[in-house]
Amino acid sequence: MPHPTSIRALTFDVFGTVVDWRGTIIEEGNRWEIDLDWAGLADAWRAGYQPAMARVRSGELGWTRIDDLHRMILDDLLPDFGLTGLSEEKLVHLNRVWHRLRPWPDAVEGLTLLKQKYVIATLSNGNVSLLTNMAKNGGLPWDCILSAELAHHYKPDPEAYLTACRLLDLPPEQVLMVAAHEGDLRAAAGVGMRTAYVHRPHEYGSRNPKPWPDEKFDWMAKDFVDLAEQLRAM
Amino acid sequence: MPHPTSIRALTFDVFGTVVDWRGTIIEEGNRWEIDLDWAGLADAWRAGYQPAMARVRSGELGWTRIDDLHRMILDDLLPDFGLTGLSEEKLVHLNRVWHRLRPWPDAVEGLTLLKQKYVIATLSNGNVSLLTNMAKNGGLPWDCILSAELAHHYKPDPEAYLTACRLLDLPPEQVLMVAAHEGDLRAAAGVGMRTAYVHRPHEYGSRNPKPWPDEKFDWMAKDFVDLAEQLRAM
Repeated sequence: MPHPTSIRALTFDVFGTVVDWRGTIIEEGNRWEIDLDWAGLADAWRAGYQPAMARVRSGELGWTRIDDLHRMILDDLLPDFGLTGLSEEKLVHLNRVWHRLRPWPDAVEGLTLLKQKYVIATLSNGNVSLLTNMAKNGGLPWDCILSAELAHHYKPDPEAYLTACRLLDLPPEQVLMVAAHEGDLRAAAGVGMRTAYVHRPHEYGSRNPKPWPDEKFDWMAKDFVDLAEQLRAM
Repeated sequence: MPHPTSIRALTFDVFGTVVDWRGTIIEEGNRWEIDLDWAGLADAWRAGYQPAMARVRSGELGWTRIDDLHRMILDDLLPDFGLTGLSEEKLVHLNRVWHRLRPWPDAVEGLTLLKQKYVIATLSNGNVSLLTNMAKNGGLPWDCILSAELAHHYKPDPEAYLTACRLLDLPPEQVLMVAAHEGDLRAAAGVGMRTAYVHRPHEYGSRNPKPWPDEKFDWMAKDFVDLAEQLRAM
């Protein structure tokens, strides 16, 4: 395991790692008082995410930010979920639910601890304005908002990680990527970054718990407070 | 005057507007216990800043971040100030004084008020890592770090302002540029942004007070707390 003092900054995956996208969409949806399978919509919406980014990666679409990809996916889902009657104003509001995602219960406390010792930044496929609004809504104390948008390359393309390290003016081995997803961490390790896996068993719902992965990363943490303990940032 | 409710985000010039570069360099310098004209060094260092950016703007230099421009200017000044004997380690530390600049006395309080109502972001020629470190050192509560580095164009090039608006996902008329320098505000107005002049009479020292400008901008404020009052962010 690398020594914590070799680390200068932590970059965080956001959707699923810092915030509970599925739980928030269901919660907000249930307040709409429309009879709708909000969990199904959340899952279908999220399932469209990788294919949409693949269209950007292949060059079929020019650079397109996540807000616009989210809207394209949502528009495709409207008929299946009986939502074609929604006004444009309501659709804009619904699409921006991704700006209002709720942090996991330990996230703000853990980030506040980690911030005392390290630079903490997002490194998300979410666009800068989405991440900025989300931080304001959820009280996330980032030092800096970094995004795939600044590289015009979505994770796991190496350019997304290398652009973040360059903007932090740190060599990759002094930057720790924190994520609940193995593919993200594998790509970060591929450019020389350090890696911390944080377990979010209920990202896909409490009825669908995710087991710990077999794969080992530099740090393996239960949540952000546990990570702060392991990095001696308490 | 545009109505404050039409504004969604504030972008701030940093050197001279948020932080006192000259006072901090003199203060830190005096703690070095070297017999040196630190005010003279601060002024000469800053005087090299526009010509250095002009070399990038003309294409004579490829994109070069401010940290590196600051170091080039400093290296040129070393003989005149009898500093050629400094170790590389000390020079690196001295060059990073720009990461440690102290906020003007009203800055943190004013930004904290403004942050309650608006997205607040830097929009500086300083590089992202410099601005991030400065915020951590000085307790500046930015929602988002934006920089000319993200456009690869220094202010007052229009690209610097337009890139910031694009990343905030706002039309320029919903973004208020805040600066103590007329040229910066004039360029922001040129792309359609709103403008707030904040008076920093002692940027070049208390013996050298700057008068209020004749030119009028959308808002004219004594300091950030005054700006917060005028924008009804209290």
